[in-house]
Amino acid sequence: MSRLPDDFLLARLSRFRDDMRDAGADAVIVTNLINLRYLTRFSGTAGLGVITQAKCCLLVDFRYVASAREAIAGAPIELAVVETTYDAALIAWLRESGARSVGVEAGSMTVSRFNLLAKTLGTTVALVPTERLVERRRAVKDAYEVEVLREAGRRLSRVARDLRSFLRAGRTEREVAAQIDAAIRDAGFERPAFETIVASGPNGARPHARPQARQVEESDGVVLDFGGVYDGYCVDLTRTLQVGRSAPEFGRLVTAVAEAQAAAIASVRPGIRPSEIDAAARDTLARHGLADAFGHGTGHGLGLEVHEEPRISRLPGALPDEPVVPGMVFTIEPGAYLEGLGGARIEDDVLVVEGGCEVLTDVPIE
Amino acid sequence: MSRLPDDFLLARLSRFRDDMRDAGADAVIVTNLINLRYLTRFSGTAGLGVITQAKCCLLVDFRYVASAREAIAGAPIELAVVETTYDAALIAWLRESGARSVGVEAGSMTVSRFNLLAKTLGTTVALVPTERLVERRRAVKDAYEVEVLREAGRRLSRVARDLRSFLRAGRTEREVAAQIDAAIRDAGFERPAFETIVASGPNGARPHARPQARQVEESDGVVLDFGGVYDGYCVDLTRTLQVGRSAPEFGRLVTAVAEAQAAAIASVRPGIRPSEIDAAARDTLARHGLADAFGHGTGHGLGLEVHEEPRISRLPGALPDEPVVPGMVFTIEPGAYLEGLGGARIEDDVLVVEGGCEVLTDVPIE
Repeated sequence: MSRLPDDFLLARLSRFRDDMRDAGADAVIVTNLINLRYLTRFSGTAGLGVITQAKCCLLVDFRYVASAREAIAGAPIELAVVETTYDAALIAWLRESGARSVGVEAGSMTVSRFNLLAKTLGTTVALVPTERLVERRRAVKDAYEVEVLREAGRRLSRVARDLRSFLRAGRTEREVAAQIDAAIRDAGFERPAFETIVASGPNGARPHARPQARQVEESDGVVLDFGGVYDGYCVDLTRTLQVGRSAPEFGRLVTAVAEAQAAAIASVRPGIRPSEIDAAARDTLARHGLADAFGHGTGHGLGLEVHEEPRISRLPGALPDEPVVPGMVFTIEPGAYLEGLGGARIEDDVLVVEGGCEVLTDVPIE
Repeated sequence: MSRLPDDFLLARLSRFRDDMRDAGADAVIVTNLINLRYLTRFSGTAGLGVITQAKCCLLVDFRYVASAREAIAGAPIELAVVETTYDAALIAWLRESGARSVGVEAGSMTVSRFNLLAKTLGTTVALVPTERLVERRRAVKDAYEVEVLREAGRRLSRVARDLRSFLRAGRTEREVAAQIDAAIRDAGFERPAFETIVASGPNGARPHARPQARQVEESDGVVLDFGGVYDGYCVDLTRTLQVGRSAPEFGRLVTAVAEAQAAAIASVRPGIRPSEIDAAARDTLARHGLADAFGHGTGHGLGLEVHEEPRISRLPGALPDEPVVPGMVFTIEPGAYLEGLGGARIEDDVLVVEGGCEVLTDVPIE
């Protein structure tokens, strides 16, 4: 497994300190574990960061001391081992630091912890809710991340090319999913990026179906949606295949979705807004009379998380509709779902580059 | 997959309404997805519940309409489909309900959402942070859950009996982990409950090691920690095996841990405090000179989550040290870790019953 080089880590920390200053915080508590990994290389399932202009401290408990030490080796990060509770260790560190204005990640800190900190730190310390301080930065990949994601995209495409051989009438969705998962590992991924979706026949009408005991049947349309984690980074791919003889009605559905996907990919370039990329897919489906059959967004960012910024959607959600910029990596995955008939979704991963985008996954639609 | 019967669901909702009343809330927003599943049977990866004395509403987005409808069929729960954002739908529902005192789950609600709700709902509505309203109830299993967990324990024990056949010098940790995962699925589990741990030789010194490319070597001690999700419920088991010829020093470590585990299991009965169960294991290890080698807690609750209440620990953590009661299900998993030499951990799952406990997993220590 490759390791984020020290100079990239330093660049992230230095940019974070600029962002802290802009947010008016002289310390920030990093509770989002993915953000913590981004800023320290530490990838345990528990841990906490506190960053000031002078120091960066990683707090971990007994279980993670060895892996935390490895993660931060070579970086100007200190390690503190939690003896009783994370909150107690955090409060002690903050008091020692003398920070007066302490930023918290409002999108991940719970109300419980916020109230406990506020009560314990008292009125001399102001807790400042911040939003997307790290997430905004994570959305734009650095050169190291781009290389990892390119390689991951190539590997996931190899898995996708074998999909046809896993699909056979009589096999259950769960069996097919298990084969895909094995292929993902064989391709060198650490693990599947999420629970693999194999949704056959009528089950395909559910965008987020879990694989069932249902046997795939002759002429079923099957949505296969799977991803892998490679060096910590997630890629994601969906194909919709028909088993055996193709049914014309279903074929038309797949064609419309493929056209929508192509239109969305063609629209991607620096400066375009996520809602406009989404509209490129949505308008195409509408022309096929499928406006109501596409209920989810067109895509989502990929990185240390399988769903991260940007969100490629028309909905006025929690995220502002900010134009995309070079270095962003996200999925393009329109779909159409018809209760009773089934569903189709086609998904590839793109990297925004000057003048357009590079498609990181490379496998025929069929 | 079996389904929680309606009368059990009704009993949970009715008890929740009593707890709401005690907490002084006339509505409660359920943001913790596991709690939501417990109260509605809905198991999607997004969704929100709002419960008053008169109504229970499940809010889901497009992706989950079909599965939400299935989940709540037969129960007095209404479904609302989110058109724009969850927050907007929630606020509209709360206004319509006329609730004045609205409980939130402080342990899962984020500061972002809390602040948005507080701002939007204005001063006529009081947001009341609540703690462990559902979690405390989930810790005590009902008759349906006990049956599911018993069956899950039997199935996971079958997987454990085959461990020896997966372990062979020359195989990588990842290969062994993949075989365990396949065996978990073959045993009828939906999926592994967490990332399977195969920590061989020196890697065993890390309680939460991720499987590596390291090849298992002759006379290595290997910690194998794995779990499965069965009908939504998690069970968890660890064995520590030696490959080929046994090394006496490592054998002594395993014996000490086995003794500690037996002592902890023998201590379990209604009325005992988690810290006392933990002490039974810890004191045994201390007698073997391993006081400093056991840095984590002795166990954790099992249910819809693989780590839930109660926490079997000596640490004055976020949870009070409340005596255990019949119906609680948790792991007993002491370990000892020596940097350089490796580690040993042995884990079984127990159900607290009148007068003692029933061990749900059944496989020799070796």
